[in-house]
Amino acid sequence: MADDAPKEKKLTKKELRILERQRTAAAAAEPKLNDSFGELPLIQSQGKTDKVYKFVSEINPELQGQSFWVRGNLQSVRAKSKIAFITIRQKMASIQGILNESDVVPREMIKFSSGIPKESIVDVFVTVTLPAQEVTSTTQKNVELSVEKIFIVSKALPELPFQFEDAARPEALVKAEGSNYVDVLLDTRLNTRVLDLRTPANQAIMRIQSGVSQLFREFLQNRDFVEIHTPKLIGGASESGSSVFKLKYFDQEACLAQSPQLYKQMACACSGLERVYEIGPVFRAENSNTHRHMCEFTGLDFEMVIKEHYHEVLDVFSDLFIYIFDNLTARFSKELAAINEQFPFEPLKYHKPSLIISFEEGVNMLKAAGATQELEEDLSTENEKWLGRLVKEKYDTDFYILDKFPLAVRPFYTMPDPNDKRWSNSYDLMIRGEEIVSGAQRVHDAKLLEERVDAFGIPKESLKAYIDAFKFGALPHGGGGIGLERVVMLYLGFGNIRKASMFPRDPKRLFP
Amino acid sequence: MADDAPKEKKLTKKELRILERQRTAAAAAEPKLNDSFGELPLIQSQGKTDKVYKFVSEINPELQGQSFWVRGNLQSVRAKSKIAFITIRQKMASIQGILNESDVVPREMIKFSSGIPKESIVDVFVTVTLPAQEVTSTTQKNVELSVEKIFIVSKALPELPFQFEDAARPEALVKAEGSNYVDVLLDTRLNTRVLDLRTPANQAIMRIQSGVSQLFREFLQNRDFVEIHTPKLIGGASESGSSVFKLKYFDQEACLAQSPQLYKQMACACSGLERVYEIGPVFRAENSNTHRHMCEFTGLDFEMVIKEHYHEVLDVFSDLFIYIFDNLTARFSKELAAINEQFPFEPLKYHKPSLIISFEEGVNMLKAAGATQELEEDLSTENEKWLGRLVKEKYDTDFYILDKFPLAVRPFYTMPDPNDKRWSNSYDLMIRGEEIVSGAQRVHDAKLLEERVDAFGIPKESLKAYIDAFKFGALPHGGGGIGLERVVMLYLGFGNIRKASMFPRDPKRLFP
Repeated sequence: MADDAPKEKKLTKKELRILERQRTAAAAAEPKLNDSFGELPLIQSQGKTDKVYKFVSEINPELQGQSFWVRGNLQSVRAKSKIAFITIRQKMASIQGILNESDVVPREMIKFSSGIPKESIVDVFVTVTLPAQEVTSTTQKNVELSVEKIFIVSKALPELPFQFEDAARPEALVKAEGSNYVDVLLDTRLNTRVLDLRTPANQAIMRIQSGVSQLFREFLQNRDFVEIHTPKLIGGASESGSSVFKLKYFDQEACLAQSPQLYKQMACACSGLERVYEIGPVFRAENSNTHRHMCEFTGLDFEMVIKEHYHEVLDVFSDLFIYIFDNLTARFSKELAAINEQFPFEPLKYHKPSLIISFEEGVNMLKAAGATQELEEDLSTENEKWLGRLVKEKYDTDFYILDKFPLAVRPFYTMPDPNDKRWSNSYDLMIRGEEIVSGAQRVHDAKLLEERVDAFGIPKESLKAYIDAFKFGALPHGGGGIGLERVVMLYLGFGNIRKASMFPRDPKRLFP
Repeated sequence: MADDAPKEKKLTKKELRILERQRTAAAAAEPKLNDSFGELPLIQSQGKTDKVYKFVSEINPELQGQSFWVRGNLQSVRAKSKIAFITIRQKMASIQGILNESDVVPREMIKFSSGIPKESIVDVFVTVTLPAQEVTSTTQKNVELSVEKIFIVSKALPELPFQFEDAARPEALVKAEGSNYVDVLLDTRLNTRVLDLRTPANQAIMRIQSGVSQLFREFLQNRDFVEIHTPKLIGGASESGSSVFKLKYFDQEACLAQSPQLYKQMACACSGLERVYEIGPVFRAENSNTHRHMCEFTGLDFEMVIKEHYHEVLDVFSDLFIYIFDNLTARFSKELAAINEQFPFEPLKYHKPSLIISFEEGVNMLKAAGATQELEEDLSTENEKWLGRLVKEKYDTDFYILDKFPLAVRPFYTMPDPNDKRWSNSYDLMIRGEEIVSGAQRVHDAKLLEERVDAFGIPKESLKAYIDAFKFGALPHGGGGIGLERVVMLYLGFGNIRKASMFPRDPKRLFP
C-alpha cells in the first residue's frame, strides 16, 4: 500500500475522496426509518448520529413513555408467533423487553429476534412501559421495554461453551441435593473467562476488587503517601533466590520481582520520600497448586518511616482496613448484594481499632485447644485457620493482627526484637484465619543488614545496590504488602483465589 | 534457634523475660535529660515516648518559642568554636538550625555536630526563633531553629559518591560558560539513585509522577471506569512476536506483556465491563538506547465501549488531559516551582478542547515546510518533532491529537477506516512534538480480526484465546495507552526519560 502512496500533485483527488467520505458518512448517519430489524454493518465509525442511548441500570418507572436506544447482550428470547419476550443485559443490570406484533413490529421481526444467538450484542429502540406485575427474572423489576427496533451489533456463535444462566445461577440451587442444574466448574469458567465474567456476581467481584484498590489509595493519598512504580525486572537476587522467574535481559541475567520490597524501602527510607505505596504485579514461581496461591497477583504495598516504634505502622494498617471494610459496605452495597445472591457469605466482623494479639498468645491459644505448635515455628495453614476460629470464638472478629513473629521464620530484612533474639518486629494480618498481609519494621542499618544477609547465607554481592543504599543515612521504617486477590477472596468468603482474579495464573494456567 | 525453643513448662521463665523486656523498654523511654548529643542506639522499637516531632515543612514564624523534635538529613554544618550553623532537610523542605554555646549547648556538642557526616539522619530538639534576616539557602526562610539537642539516628559514610549541593544546583549555573561547578552526570546520579532522589527537584518529580497517575484515576473513576489488573505473564504471542522478553513458565514458554492491550480489550468489550483502566508495568525488549525509550515503563491504559464513533474516545482523551494539566498547575505548584528552580521549563500550552488534526494535514504541513514525508508512512522521530514545532507555530499549542494514521503502520487490532483502506481509526497524542499516547478504535469482529492477523503474518494459534473472545458477542470499543514517564518528561520539558523514572531500566541498566 505504501508503494502507491499518492504524491503532492494528487491533492485534488484526495480532496475529492475526503468529500466523498464525508458524504458517505452523512448518508450513513441519516436514520433509515423503514428498517426496524436486521444485522447492522460493522460499526467502524461510519458517522455520528443523534441517537440517544440509555444504560439499562438507569431505566426506571419515571421514564415511562420515553423512547431511546439500549445496547446490551441479548441474554434470552422466548418467542411465540405474535409475541416475544427478550432479556437485555448490560453490566450488572438486566431488563425485560417485549415485541408485540403490530404495525411497527411485523411478524418477521419477531421471527428474526427469536433467531438471534444468545449473548449477541444488540441495539434495541424501545419505549418504556410499566409491567402489570413485577418482573422477577431481571434486576429492573418495575419497568419493561416495548421494543420497536432490534439490530444485531455483534453476533455470538450459536453454541456457547456454557450457558449464561448456568453460570449465573445461585450456588445453593446448583449444589442442592438432587439438583439437575448444570454445575459450571471453575476450570470451564476460566477457560472462557470473558463469558464467565458477564454474570452479575462476577461483574460485582471485579468492581469490589477495583474498590479495594481505590479505597487503599484514597486512604494513603490522604495521609501524604506518594505512589511509586518500582522495577519488576531485577538484576541480582530478589528477596530470596528461590521461587523466582528468571529471564535473559540482553546480555545479563534478570529475574521478576517477588515483591517491591527492596525498592520501596529504598524509596521510603533511603531517598527520603518517607511514605510511599505501590500497586503492582508480584511474581512467584512456586509450584503450588492450592486454593490460595497464584504465580502472579496484585500487591498493594506501602512503606513508611517511623519515629520510635513499628506500632506506628500497625496503627496505619488498623485504620486502613477499617476504612476499606467500612466503605465497601457503604459504597458497594449493590455489588455485595449481587455476589450474595449467587455466592452467599457471612458479613465480616472486625474491631475498631483492630485486635492485635502476639504470636506467643496465638501459640498458647492453639496449644490450649490441643494443636501441635512450637513456639518459634511458623504456623501451618491448618493451624493458621484453627487460630482464626479460636480468635473468632474468643474475640468475635474475623480480622486481626498477629504480632511479633519468631525471627527465624521471617525474611532477612526484618528488624529483630531489641530485647529477645527469638522474636522480631513483624506481623501478619488475617482475615477469616488466612494471611492477607505480611509486614515488619525493617533493618535500616547497613551493618546489621549485612549480618542478617550473612545469617541467611545469601551472597552479599547479589544485594550490593540494596545494602549500599543504607550507607548514606537511612530513616527507621516499616510497612507491609497486601495481597489484593486474597483480601477479595477472604472478605467474600470464597474458597478459591482464582474467583477473585480476572485472568488467574497458576503453575498450570497461562491462558487465556 | 528453633531447636532450643522453650516448651510449656518454661512459661515462668518467659514471663520473667517479658517483665524484664517491659522494664527495659520503660527505662529506654524515659528522657535522659543530661544527654544532649551523641549517637542514638539503633531504633529498634525499644519503646514509645511522648516526644513530639514536627515536619520541617510545617515550621513557620507562628511557632515562635515552641519546642519540639525534628528528624531529617543533616544537609550541611558550618562550625566555628562557639557557634555552628546546620541545615536540616526533610523531603522538599529545609531549615537552618543554630548551635550557640551556652549552658544547654556545651562546646563539645558543637564539636560533635561539626563531625557528623553530611546526609546522616539526625534528631534535633529545637526551639523556634525568628532570624534577623531572611535565610536564603533554605526553603523555610523566615524562621530558624535554636538547637538544644542533637543525636545521630543513622550515620552516613564520610565520603559520598557525590555531594548533595552538586546534585541540587540549578542547571543554568552548572552549565554556564566558565562554570567551575561539578556537573553530576545522569549515569552517576542513577548509580546512586537513592542519594540523587533526595534533591528537592527529584522529590518534586516523583510527586508529579504520582500526581499524574492520581489525576488519571480520579478522572476515570468519576466516569465509571473500573480498575483492572491483567496478567503480565502471557502465553503464546503478545501483540507482536518481536521485542518481547521470554521466560520459562514451569514447563511452558511465556513472555512478558508488551502492554495490557489484548486483556483490557477482553475485559472491556468481551466481558461487558464496558469501561476499564489499568496502571501497570509494560515491558519492551527493544535494544534502543535513546532519550525516550526504556525497557520497562508504567502504562496508563484505558479502554471503553463506543456507540458509533471512535471520536467518543478522543473526547474522553481530550477531557482527561485537560483535567491532568489543569490540576497539575492547581495542586502541584510547590513541586513545579522546585523543579523550575533546578530545571527551568516552559509551561505547557494546550487548547480546550484539545486540537485534533488529521495525519494527512500533518503530512501536508511537513511537506509545505520542506520535510521528506510520504503520506502513508509513519513519522520519523525527527519529523514528529518538526511537526510539533509547526503545530506550535500555527496553533499555539504544545499538546495535540494526530488522528487517522495510515493502516499499514498500526497494529493488527486497529480498526480500518470504513471508506478508505489506506487509513485507520487510530491516533497519537503528542506533547512538545513527541508521542505520549497511541490508541485506536479496535476490531471487535472475530472474522475481521482473523483477516488482519493473517495480513500481518502472525500465526493465529498464538492468539487463539484472544480471537475466540470476540466470538460470543463483543462491544465496539476503543482506547489507548499513555506512557507515564513520557508524560512527565515532556510536560517538564526534560531531554531524557530516565529523569522521570525512579529506577529506570534500559538495555544497559538493570541496577540499582
